[in-house]
Amino acid sequence: MKRRKAAILGATGLVGQRLVSMLADHPFLEISQLIGDESAGKSYGDSVDWKLPSPIPNGLASLEVVRLQHSNLDADLVFSALPAHVAVLAEVKLAKNGFAVVSDASAHRMDVNVPLVVPEVNPDHVRIIEAQKKAENYEGFIAANPNCSTSILSLALKPLEDAFGLSSVSVVTMQGLSGAGLPGVPSITVQDNVIPFIFKEEEKIESESRKILGREKDGRIVSARLEVSASCNRVPVSHGHLESVTLETKKPVDPENALQVLDEFKGLPQDLRLPTAPERPVITRRERDRPQPALDREAGSVPGMSIVVGRLRRGPSDHHLKFSVLGHNLIRGAAGQTILTAELLCSQGYVGA
Amino acid sequence: MKRRKAAILGATGLVGQRLVSMLADHPFLEISQLIGDESAGKSYGDSVDWKLPSPIPNGLASLEVVRLQHSNLDADLVFSALPAHVAVLAEVKLAKNGFAVVSDASAHRMDVNVPLVVPEVNPDHVRIIEAQKKAENYEGFIAANPNCSTSILSLALKPLEDAFGLSSVSVVTMQGLSGAGLPGVPSITVQDNVIPFIFKEEEKIESESRKILGREKDGRIVSARLEVSASCNRVPVSHGHLESVTLETKKPVDPENALQVLDEFKGLPQDLRLPTAPERPVITRRERDRPQPALDREAGSVPGMSIVVGRLRRGPSDHHLKFSVLGHNLIRGAAGQTILTAELLCSQGYVGA
Amino acid sequence: MKRRKAAILGATGLVGQRLVSMLADHPFLEISQLIGDESAGKSYGDSVDWKLPSPIPNGLASLEVVRLQHSNLDADLVFSALPAHVAVLAEVKLAKNGFAVVSDASAHRMDVNVPLVVPEVNPDHVRIIEAQKKAENYEGFIAANPNCSTSILSLALKPLEDAFGLSSVSVVTMQGLSGAGLPGVPSITVQDNVIPFIFKEEEKIESESRKILGREKDGRIVSARLEVSASCNRVPVSHGHLESVTLETKKPVDPENALQVLDEFKGLPQDLRLPTAPERPVITRRERDRPQPALDREAGSVPGMSIVVGRLRRGPSDHHLKFSVLGHNLIRGAAGQTILTAELLCSQGYVGA
Amino acid sequence: MKRRKAAILGATGLVGQRLVSMLADHPFLEISQLIGDESAGKSYGDSVDWKLPSPIPNGLASLEVVRLQHSNLDADLVFSALPAHVAVLAEVKLAKNGFAVVSDASAHRMDVNVPLVVPEVNPDHVRIIEAQKKAENYEGFIAANPNCSTSILSLALKPLEDAFGLSSVSVVTMQGLSGAGLPGVPSITVQDNVIPFIFKEEEKIESESRKILGREKDGRIVSARLEVSASCNRVPVSHGHLESVTLETKKPVDPENALQVLDEFKGLPQDLRLPTAPERPVITRRERDRPQPALDREAGSVPGMSIVVGRLRRGPSDHHLKFSVLGHNLIRGAAGQTILTAELLCSQGYVGA
Repeated sequence: MKRRKAAILGATGLVGQRLVSMLADHPFLEISQLIGDESAGKSYGDSVDWKLPSPIPNGLASLEVVRLQHSNLDADLVFSALPAHVAVLAEVKLAKNGFAVVSDASAHRMDVNVPLVVPEVNPDHVRIIEAQKKAENYEGFIAANPNCSTSILSLALKPLEDAFGLSSVSVVTMQGLSGAGLPGVPSITVQDNVIPFIFKEEEKIESESRKILGREKDGRIVSARLEVSASCNRVPVSHGHLESVTLETKKPVDPENALQVLDEFKGLPQDLRLPTAPERPVITRRERDRPQPALDREAGSVPGMSIVVGRLRRGPSDHHLKFSVLGHNLIRGAAGQTILTAELLCSQGYVGA
Repeated sequence: MKRRKAAILGATGLVGQRLVSMLADHPFLEISQLIGDESAGKSYGDSVDWKLPSPIPNGLASLEVVRLQHSNLDADLVFSALPAHVAVLAEVKLAKNGFAVVSDASAHRMDVNVPLVVPEVNPDHVRIIEAQKKAENYEGFIAANPNCSTSILSLALKPLEDAFGLSSVSVVTMQGLSGAGLPGVPSITVQDNVIPFIFKEEEKIESESRKILGREKDGRIVSARLEVSASCNRVPVSHGHLESVTLETKKPVDPENALQVLDEFKGLPQDLRLPTAPERPVITRRERDRPQPALDREAGSVPGMSIVVGRLRRGPSDHHLKFSVLGHNLIRGAAGQTILTAELLCSQGYVGA
Repeated sequence: MKRRKAAILGATGLVGQRLVSMLADHPFLEISQLIGDESAGKSYGDSVDWKLPSPIPNGLASLEVVRLQHSNLDADLVFSALPAHVAVLAEVKLAKNGFAVVSDASAHRMDVNVPLVVPEVNPDHVRIIEAQKKAENYEGFIAANPNCSTSILSLALKPLEDAFGLSSVSVVTMQGLSGAGLPGVPSITVQDNVIPFIFKEEEKIESESRKILGREKDGRIVSARLEVSASCNRVPVSHGHLESVTLETKKPVDPENALQVLDEFKGLPQDLRLPTAPERPVITRRERDRPQPALDREAGSVPGMSIVVGRLRRGPSDHHLKFSVLGHNLIRGAAGQTILTAELLCSQGYVGA
Repeated sequence: MKRRKAAILGATGLVGQRLVSMLADHPFLEISQLIGDESAGKSYGDSVDWKLPSPIPNGLASLEVVRLQHSNLDADLVFSALPAHVAVLAEVKLAKNGFAVVSDASAHRMDVNVPLVVPEVNPDHVRIIEAQKKAENYEGFIAANPNCSTSILSLALKPLEDAFGLSSVSVVTMQGLSGAGLPGVPSITVQDNVIPFIFKEEEKIESESRKILGREKDGRIVSARLEVSASCNRVPVSHGHLESVTLETKKPVDPENALQVLDEFKGLPQDLRLPTAPERPVITRRERDRPQPALDREAGSVPGMSIVVGRLRRGPSDHHLKFSVLGHNLIRGAAGQTILTAELLCSQGYVGA
């Protein structure tokens, strides 16, 4: 694959740090610029409160962070890990100026002509980019990465939707601390505690998962008709979002059958052998007490890119299924999947073609 | 009220320690014996790995722990905090020998002629004690305290069942570490982790809550027809079980209405002014991020005896209600409620009358 | 004692909240004003992220927070829980304008004519207030409360200094999260972690403890000649600072003897029966694994006002002593001791006399 | 290097699991047997409560655990991760029967003719094996791995001893939970807590570090004359022991100088390029808040085999040095270093030559 230059907006946050870390040795994406208004003029090493065990990758610590200039970036592709209120305008300007924006911000996720991509689930949604460019008069475009909990959930729902049809989804999340970014939750607030609330998270899960499972019509995404009900909790765990799910299915469902369907699930990224695609997007565990954040958050051939499903069992009827699903919020839920989407877009000719 | 002598079986465990602590200054229950085969002959202070911040109450540290003799206790009342497999036979023998056994063990909870008591919810169930004595040929009797998560849940369900009728309950628990007793979960297992499994807990919640909400018929309890579906998780929190609940109601339900119903709920223990009865069994919070274990587990006029309900909101339809409920697993969920049941039984003439 | 009006500066922080909570039922100090520029005009309840399990005390939630006016306070006494950089000037202006300022801020702790008070240790230091007023041309005065770790440490050192003489002190702290205030340490930073650094804490312990153990000379405090060496760590514990101490003594020291000296220690606040004075400022434990933050941080007749010393044992020679000491950083280390100092000042005629 | 067969005693514990994991792809050590009396007859997968994120390595899950037969092992080398009281006799019998025993148990660490090896620090101590064989009439021999905290500490002390001479060492440890093995500390005991006591740990650190820094004389190890004083704490951290150290040196010491000495330190394992030897046994950090368990416990070219030293600074005089040191207790502190010692012994012709 042809090499592309990638700029990162918001490179000092937790998602930005993961983008930097995962792109450092990428076979065809190359970090060309780290962009941040507050840190502009300083080196990346001096700007970032680096939170990964591995050091800042080769050379990047001394790279100077530059101010955002919407028309004058040295990049084929822009990764945005900006806060939503900043992203709203910045991403539009970049798209107008011809840049391919792949965004982890929530700003444009629910725009009807912005694809909200989980590459194994709805790779066909990227087709609406053409309509987006026309409708918005963009030279470039915006593609969005879903909310972390939603990305993880959708990947478990898709194979089951295909096999059994879903009529309702009820999910209770137990989300790790890194999902709140930096500075995130004060430690005294969550020490020896669980917080049964995450700002706007339930709304995001409910609306975004319907969009991801929706279909394209006339250049727009029509959300799936599916009842989704979410309750979100913050738990004192560093990384990993654990979700307790109850589904109602249209066809009767047998747990063994469901496990097999999940085990066998593959998507376009696996077919295309994209570099950040894990061999198995969904790993199932049959032990009685898995998945667990501490043991399973880095599962898979690309660590953190597989979700892990366990405790799959019958619910109240043969049209109900219960299970727990876990994913790494910063990898499958954010940086890793955003990169996978960029890889998909490159492979489909949307970037720098 | 006439003073009664109370013996405690299993006084060294976490529930036992709470029984000792709460009974130390009780107005009419007096600890007469601490019973334990393994510790027999040693002082209580030398036997127990005392985990409460307050010291072992006056005089009890030097009390000698005695061996269980089923016929020869110096007690009007026996509190059992034994492990289930030991409780099965021990409690039967004690009941045969004329003792009033109020048990926190799971051994006899689902026996059809044993009342499973949440004193504010089903105080009338104690009437089956007469039938139990006849059927089992007991001089004494057994009354059981429900599982901790179930006790907390039932107290939230009862007022809503009365007001709106319940057709299904879905609950996901996040349970504190002390619920597993001593030694309980190894610290390395749960550090920076959540365990999505607690042995037999889901089955207990599902069956016990139906029994508690059931009704007496011919000296037996007939469980309520109610679909209950539970998923249980262990979280790294010392004390407090937080439960995320979705209900389906028979009548349409409005959140404001539901909050009012919960706020106004009182039961027989409040009418009787039993010493361990909190003024308000259910406390509601309207902040967006409550209840929280660290802040709310000792809520109420009798610390830890009130449950706290918050985040009450509409679910997917006007027949659905969602909320979070928290209770102290060792107090409302175990020792405190067991004592409250004993107080109820004393007031109703079942003990030492 | 005559009632005094007390204003609180910085009432929304963690120390401020404890001041509010502890002063709510005080026998002779009465909260007259809550002062904060950022929250001015809002009610206290709307301004504060209240972190105590007990609710905001009676009436104070609706009290309006007012802007600081240095000359026009309705108060006999001002408690300052301001950040140091704000306190520098604000406290001086208040002192100039006639107010008695008892401050938990670090701003003026090391000023030679400001007493740095641990009421059981150096109550005589308050005598320099007269000299301070003259030297600084103050109508009122400033008295300072030491750093949290230092307050706890000094209380353990004083009886041993008196009995055996100290030549050097080496202390390694393990400090709870609430010591960093709000927002304090981000949770992701300290989850499953220990941070071996606290900004300026070691310098504070080293200089302040020498001042506290110093003596008055010509209206100034001359620090004690004592080698103090500190190493500070932040641990994932909500409240409580645990300190591992090694002392070198001038006289030979025997552990049993040292324990007795600590056990018997009392100070002027105990003699005066000040309301916030614990019966025993130092509690000793002889178990092999105490003190522990979770079990001992609220020890004593005034919860959190006693320190707990344990594991007292010989060091490398008979002139060395090793022990662990624990105190509640927000109570003995901050709000509680500040109130105790205010009580001392009232009783000695320095406030509103 | 010639391939050797290695048997593992105590393979189901936390250290045993690390041995299994690290030996799975070893270039010349090959796991031949997993030995355990309790699990004998079951597969390793069914016996172990596997706690590593990575799965049980290829094939080993189905390997049958066998009973210990002291004379009839299929092994050139035996790794012992037994509890001390079992190891005492078992290791002697194995040595008598001709096996090379490399033990992580404490049983024989302080025997004068057993080398207590930190391979970078005292590789010459293995020479006493010849004397041991004669004195004890062993066909094989016993070599011991030090206590985890001691291994980490010694590696920091050695370069400083060589450069400046040490007269005293004072260390306060903050040790991770996995150091206590399985089941280890109950979670309720250590939740929101620090335990200022670890059974016999202080004695081990004090005696073992002197032995490691000692010298061989007549086939025995004579401990160094060095005052070592330790205070040990258990903190709620999964893995990693953090130690706060104060040294007194014989020559004056300058922090920059000391850092350089640590940076440049290499030992025989590095010269021999042993497979488990990290490129740099000691990594220094100059940030003000490192080392931290969460970020630094897997530092180095062989993850977990390097220790990390930071916050190095002057102590009370120019003959004092203070720093924090961190190491992975299960890798450098146990399994990894035990393997490195085995590699050293193989390279020196002590095993299967």
